[in-house]
Amino acid sequence: GYASGARKVTLIPGDGIGPEISAAVQKIFTAASVPIEWEAVDVTPVRGPDGKFGIPQAAIDSVNTNKIGLKGPLMTPVGKGHRSLNLALRKEFNLYANVRPCRSLEGYKTLYDDVDVVTIRENTEGEYSGIEHEIVDGVVQSIKLITEEASMRVADYAFQYAKNNNRKKVTVVHKANIMRMSDGLFLRCVRDTAKKYPEIQFEERYLDTVCLNMVQNPGKYDVLVMPNLYGDILSDMCAGLVGGLGLTPSGNMGLNGALFESVHGTAPDIAGKDLANPTALLLSAVMMLRHMELNSYADKIERAAFETIKESKYLTGDLGGKAKCSEFTNEICAKL
Amino acid sequence: GYASGARKVTLIPGDGIGPEISAAVQKIFTAASVPIEWEAVDVTPVRGPDGKFGIPQAAIDSVNTNKIGLKGPLMTPVGKGHRSLNLALRKEFNLYANVRPCRSLEGYKTLYDDVDVVTIRENTEGEYSGIEHEIVDGVVQSIKLITEEASMRVADYAFQYAKNNNRKKVTVVHKANIMRMSDGLFLRCVRDTAKKYPEIQFEERYLDTVCLNMVQNPGKYDVLVMPNLYGDILSDMCAGLVGGLGLTPSGNMGLNGALFESVHGTAPDIAGKDLANPTALLLSAVMMLRHMELNSYADKIERAAFETIKESKYLTGDLGGKAKCSEFTNEICAKL
Ligand SMILES: CC(C)[C@H](C(=O)O)[C@@H](O)C(=O)O
Ligand SMILES: CC(C)[C@H](C(=O)O)[C@@H](O)C(=O)O
Repeated sequence: GYASGARKVTLIPGDGIGPEISAAVQKIFTAASVPIEWEAVDVTPVRGPDGKFGIPQAAIDSVNTNKIGLKGPLMTPVGKGHRSLNLALRKEFNLYANVRPCRSLEGYKTLYDDVDVVTIRENTEGEYSGIEHEIVDGVVQSIKLITEEASMRVADYAFQYAKNNNRKKVTVVHKANIMRMSDGLFLRCVRDTAKKYPEIQFEERYLDTVCLNMVQNPGKYDVLVMPNLYGDILSDMCAGLVGGLGLTPSGNMGLNGALFESVHGTAPDIAGKDLANPTALLLSAVMMLRHMELNSYADKIERAAFETIKESKYLTGDLGGKAKCSEFTNEICAKL
Repeated sequence: GYASGARKVTLIPGDGIGPEISAAVQKIFTAASVPIEWEAVDVTPVRGPDGKFGIPQAAIDSVNTNKIGLKGPLMTPVGKGHRSLNLALRKEFNLYANVRPCRSLEGYKTLYDDVDVVTIRENTEGEYSGIEHEIVDGVVQSIKLITEEASMRVADYAFQYAKNNNRKKVTVVHKANIMRMSDGLFLRCVRDTAKKYPEIQFEERYLDTVCLNMVQNPGKYDVLVMPNLYGDILSDMCAGLVGGLGLTPSGNMGLNGALFESVHGTAPDIAGKDLANPTALLLSAVMMLRHMELNSYADKIERAAFETIKESKYLTGDLGGKAKCSEFTNEICAKL
């Protein structure tokens, strides 16, 4: 049993390898005596009274009540007429900033050893507006929507994040040379926000330039803030620099709650075989603990995970090792 | 003087370092006795009878007559109410496919040694449509325009390119999971085109996945075809993997002509100081020679350039060397 007063956290185990990596995280949290209580919910869309498929009300209520959740990977059933469930959750809870820290792990070697960047992505609009039309046969338009409200919100989040996490610099990433009005508005919002944080360095860079420099000299960058699609791209690229989506956490921050998730896929080919790597979900859970100001638990779990990765005998298959998910998990627990 | 029957080529020297790197290319072409005649034109916008600034008619006529051109970097004057001159040229001549090969150079070491990819970018529409509106105060939309016509044209170009250049595989890069209608249309066009080229492998990948895999294992990819903005990003990223925009060529292919250009900036800080690296423009000129079926000249110039780069004493400052532009150029000429 948990200590009384333990805060409830919604858990969306997800599909494919989701349940087993969620179980791994729960096991590690228990070993670390983290004072939270899990509330597992199922988000598989159900048909509502209006005949449309949607996220079950119980799941929505759980997140809205607990205001904090951890989520494994979700598969979007094809051809059932609904968009990505991952996106539906971001919209449902108005999770306006997607935060993805990418840091070179001492214990896991890649071509790069000095990556330490945080991409902060506008998470509700931009190229993800969902507004598209076929004007005439063979002519389609998609609308990229940029609002001052969402841009100011994410800009402010980025500078607050930089301030609270002892970061030195914020770079706004844009293509305002091409999309002058939309990226121009985003750029102006971040520029205006920067003025309120004179202690944080601020720079403006084109997306293409950042992509080029990031693969040559990632140490140049610190915190990056950008419209939705650019964040999708850059965060994956940065994850690639440090070892892939199996190692990188993410958080979706909203006004009324936050949802932390691993952004890798459901890996149906290895699901249920005790072969999955729970690191991304575990590090997302560590981000969650910091958000809950349970820093000492976060630090100790993170340390145990990094040490285990460093001792290469516990690496799972995706990282070139032979360990099972349970062996990796048990080793982290043993270190706690 | 040139051999009679020499084909005329329009030369747009460009701004900043443009004139000196153009002169370097001309010198090398003379040393190699390439049978072409240069026709230099100025594209600095002039005010037309309608009061609007535009590309001078003489420059337009030159490209339309010669149907082939080489172009250095252009600066877009700020605040004169016109868009990028680089883009204006792509639009003016309907240069529908932007081709950017990126290959690891044996003579110039980076973190990667197995990059050999060609990005083929739709070059006339997509996110570069220029159509934007402020709907209400603080709410802006930009329109991404995808047409079947432009998508089919670039798809066919990509497969033809793969076929003519002994390439094995074409990957279409998209976000049709998000922009279902627009990227969906692009995807379907490439998919349909792929059926006409059964000898070329074909695969479909999300843009974010390609960004991640490209930095981990670029050897996975061969020819990539994609909408406009994605090509802007990926081509710069790939250039980063092999040493930057100072080393990578590009060609803009149209129905009525082709324009080859270096895509780096005008580098005003070093302009006129004999410090610029002419390699990107030279390799663009080599691409141009192949397009003109002057392959033996192309091969011999390319070989001389690669050898000179390999002998690291002739590297310019951007590549970590100390040589002047003229020293690098003279060495290439000496090898011819
Ligand atoms: C699953 C997909 C819709 C999503 C996105 O495009 O945002 C993913 O790539 C991500 O980065 O979270
Ligand atoms: C100069 C700029 C308008 C251009 C673009 O965005 O296409 C450049 O980045 C390129 O890749 O050619």
